[in-house]
Amino acid sequence: MTVEIRILQKPGLNNPILICGLPGSGYVGKLAVDHLVSELDAIPIGEVYSSSFPPQIIIKPDGTSELMKNVLYAVTANQSRPDLLIFTGDSQPISPDANYEISERVVEVAHELGTETVFTLAAYITGAFVKEPKVYGTATSVDFAKELERKGVVKMSEGTITGMNGVLIGVAKKKGLTGASLLGETSGYIIDAKASQAVLVILSQLLSIKLNLANLESRAKETESVIQTIEQMRMRSQEKPIGKGEQPEKGPGYIS
Amino acid sequence: MTVEIRILQKPGLNNPILICGLPGSGYVGKLAVDHLVSELDAIPIGEVYSSSFPPQIIIKPDGTSELMKNVLYAVTANQSRPDLLIFTGDSQPISPDANYEISERVVEVAHELGTETVFTLAAYITGAFVKEPKVYGTATSVDFAKELERKGVVKMSEGTITGMNGVLIGVAKKKGLTGASLLGETSGYIIDAKASQAVLVILSQLLSIKLNLANLESRAKETESVIQTIEQMRMRSQEKPIGKGEQPEKGPGYIS
Amino acid sequence: MTVEIRILQKPGLNNPILICGLPGSGYVGKLAVDHLVSELDAIPIGEVYSSSFPPQIIIKPDGTSELMKNVLYAVTANQSRPDLLIFTGDSQPISPDANYEISERVVEVAHELGTETVFTLAAYITGAFVKEPKVYGTATSVDFAKELERKGVVKMSEGTITGMNGVLIGVAKKKGLTGASLLGETSGYIIDAKASQAVLVILSQLLSIKLNLANLESRAKETESVIQTIEQMRMRSQEKPIGKGEQPEKGPGYIS
Amino acid sequence: MTVEIRILQKPGLNNPILICGLPGSGYVGKLAVDHLVSELDAIPIGEVYSSSFPPQIIIKPDGTSELMKNVLYAVTANQSRPDLLIFTGDSQPISPDANYEISERVVEVAHELGTETVFTLAAYITGAFVKEPKVYGTATSVDFAKELERKGVVKMSEGTITGMNGVLIGVAKKKGLTGASLLGETSGYIIDAKASQAVLVILSQLLSIKLNLANLESRAKETESVIQTIEQMRMRSQEKPIGKGEQPEKGPGYIS
Repeated sequence: MTVEIRILQKPGLNNPILICGLPGSGYVGKLAVDHLVSELDAIPIGEVYSSSFPPQIIIKPDGTSELMKNVLYAVTANQSRPDLLIFTGDSQPISPDANYEISERVVEVAHELGTETVFTLAAYITGAFVKEPKVYGTATSVDFAKELERKGVVKMSEGTITGMNGVLIGVAKKKGLTGASLLGETSGYIIDAKASQAVLVILSQLLSIKLNLANLESRAKETESVIQTIEQMRMRSQEKPIGKGEQPEKGPGYIS
Repeated sequence: MTVEIRILQKPGLNNPILICGLPGSGYVGKLAVDHLVSELDAIPIGEVYSSSFPPQIIIKPDGTSELMKNVLYAVTANQSRPDLLIFTGDSQPISPDANYEISERVVEVAHELGTETVFTLAAYITGAFVKEPKVYGTATSVDFAKELERKGVVKMSEGTITGMNGVLIGVAKKKGLTGASLLGETSGYIIDAKASQAVLVILSQLLSIKLNLANLESRAKETESVIQTIEQMRMRSQEKPIGKGEQPEKGPGYIS
Repeated sequence: MTVEIRILQKPGLNNPILICGLPGSGYVGKLAVDHLVSELDAIPIGEVYSSSFPPQIIIKPDGTSELMKNVLYAVTANQSRPDLLIFTGDSQPISPDANYEISERVVEVAHELGTETVFTLAAYITGAFVKEPKVYGTATSVDFAKELERKGVVKMSEGTITGMNGVLIGVAKKKGLTGASLLGETSGYIIDAKASQAVLVILSQLLSIKLNLANLESRAKETESVIQTIEQMRMRSQEKPIGKGEQPEKGPGYIS
Repeated sequence: MTVEIRILQKPGLNNPILICGLPGSGYVGKLAVDHLVSELDAIPIGEVYSSSFPPQIIIKPDGTSELMKNVLYAVTANQSRPDLLIFTGDSQPISPDANYEISERVVEVAHELGTETVFTLAAYITGAFVKEPKVYGTATSVDFAKELERKGVVKMSEGTITGMNGVLIGVAKKKGLTGASLLGETSGYIIDAKASQAVLVILSQLLSIKLNLANLESRAKETESVIQTIEQMRMRSQEKPIGKGEQPEKGPGYIS
């Protein structure tokens, strides 16, 4: 398995906070982080390619296509925010192993850029619709867990967080960094802008970031529509296998 | 996982276009590329062995057998065509990882031989039979995508292309080469010579290749019959497991 | 795949017996070894991290979380016991390969600390409830197998022991060490403190350890309750996938 | 993934023929090769351990247990036979990759000992019972395929041979050695001593080996009984999972 990190530029940052949100069930973290990237004019400074991503290219509206990747963005500080690194991407890796290896590499790169604190944003799925989603959380130290509670985060005391949004925090702790995961309560049935918003409200208070959340709802709608399109294509493509001795180009959008 | 590329000979080629078609659902690309190999008297110049291919040997009509492999062919230019490299083979790799690693290696080898442009030929599966199959496409640059459109290719603007026929293009882009994928519209229910023909017509216009397409239909018939034989053997062999503590020689043709 | 062993301290031990119990069906060995760690005031001296553990963090009652890991403990000798090493952890590795690689590494580390004998404690599942669970066993030499029999262990003469609790013994033998596996008879339907107790009674006789078994039953109750909580969260979380092109943060407790 | 070959002794052999039979569906090849080992007083000269074998130990009638392994045996020539190497073992590897890697290593070791010709013995499963099982075959060269036909082997002309019994021949060919696979016709429903016998009759004619086949039938009966025991234990053990967040000690005989 290969992990290739391409550094596009080396920003001069001062102890940047690393904020991660990889696509997962609920899509809460990914939506929140995409919003941060857009609202804070984050600049891509690194790309992560890996043979552990689904083996496919993604076709974009302009007709071009490229490999799946993750991207590391930088945001420079001003009066309304500290220095930030933001990590997100098209996909989580396929294999369990790669969750660890990509997390190790990303935390290393961020640490070299001065990062001492890592957040992951994710979903807390309940199956029920709520008007005012809570934000659940866990941290890598008792002190940090208490600080989260003071800001209104509901302390978790059991369970697991699976995938990159968990492993990134665990790796941060193993390397001596501080980390926390913020999980927006959501039904799990829709792309839930309110859950992402709740997470971002807490995060902006924790980090003293001023953030415009107005566009978040429309972004949720777009995201849902994109995902439905992909799903429809997927289902259409799975209706018609041709019997064959060789391995098919498996599970394409609507192609092979 | 191992990937072993055996160079059989080093041809002197001038910026050869690399054309790839690995077996996938629809078999459109594989059929088209097999036709190119045969009609252009392509010469095998390299073999790709990998522990990621299905662990089996293929038995040939003369009674001999050998490991599954992919093959790189060369075609030298004359008045009716430019220099070409053609890449195809018995199988796509089994593991997601290997899709990336073999694609990386093959694009590297081609790049060392002067390749700057990579095509993959594949299927665009719709589930419906059409009289005049369209050719869909995507490219690694906006300019190239527009050139495809001018030649009659339907521009794709969403979805994914999975497997080697996607990853080869993505890897080409990552390495700074230009690439495009041409996808012949097909139902997915038969080996569809008309879809392969439609792809080859576009390709021959793009590359100014003169190509005789007369034998394509009979090749499709042969291919379908071979594939059906393999499927029948497969189903027969799966009827009769013996209970056993060890792993069976899994999924043989009709053998173990 | 990575295996990282962190040595926290190097104890001075005299031919310590290595006792292993990884979580497995029945939970007999894990429960027994957890009891040893607690009753003998075992000190953690090493941690095993691996990309082959489930890719997740575990959330603890104090609100903090960390990566899954295995732990090596040391117990120093006194009148009522010899020097011991104890190996257990949150999880067995996911992949078959990792069972071998972690076992190799752990036996090596123990061997460097002077270990010549390895025990694994595990479950012998029958599907039936019994009042007085037997202890079954196998060893790496005929002499050791006979010694087990003399202590009341029922000699096994066929079958396999799968996972770390088997492979650790097999690796010990391959490296020239002596090993034995003790398997407590259990229905497999509950966390069975009596089966763990039966195994510990035999072990304490074999190793001349004085052991208080009073707390074992309450520990079994706690364990069962923890496991049920995890299962409920798991089931709840699996009810509500959102259709999506990317891989979900798979199988979280109640989170992603 | 690791492959460890332990050379126990280096025999002085003269171009030994390598004969392989790994356990597979039908058990024809394994039974035949076990018979060779026993009748020719073959001496174990090498052991193959691999992290790609099922992660378990096998318990033997004397109460001892050890890791799964493959074994290379040597037979020295006399008037009634040439020098031979025989390769068999407890299991085929789990992963596709390992089929290739173990085959590469074993053929290399044999080649270093002088081997130029490799046979694999396997099953040709038909689902029907026959009185006089045929022997099917394929070879790595046209000449060798014809020689097989002259000895009464039915020439195969299509299909695949999956697993070690195929890959070993394919690897031999890739390395410039000669190879053939002999497949005994069998229903696939029983351990079929007659199929193994048919294969051994052909093999002994091809290699001018004098072979006593009298014990083969009783060996088949024993083998079947062992396998049934393993299966029963397996089924019993699969009835009773305990819900749990960790990976169980999976699929034990009747143990964990």
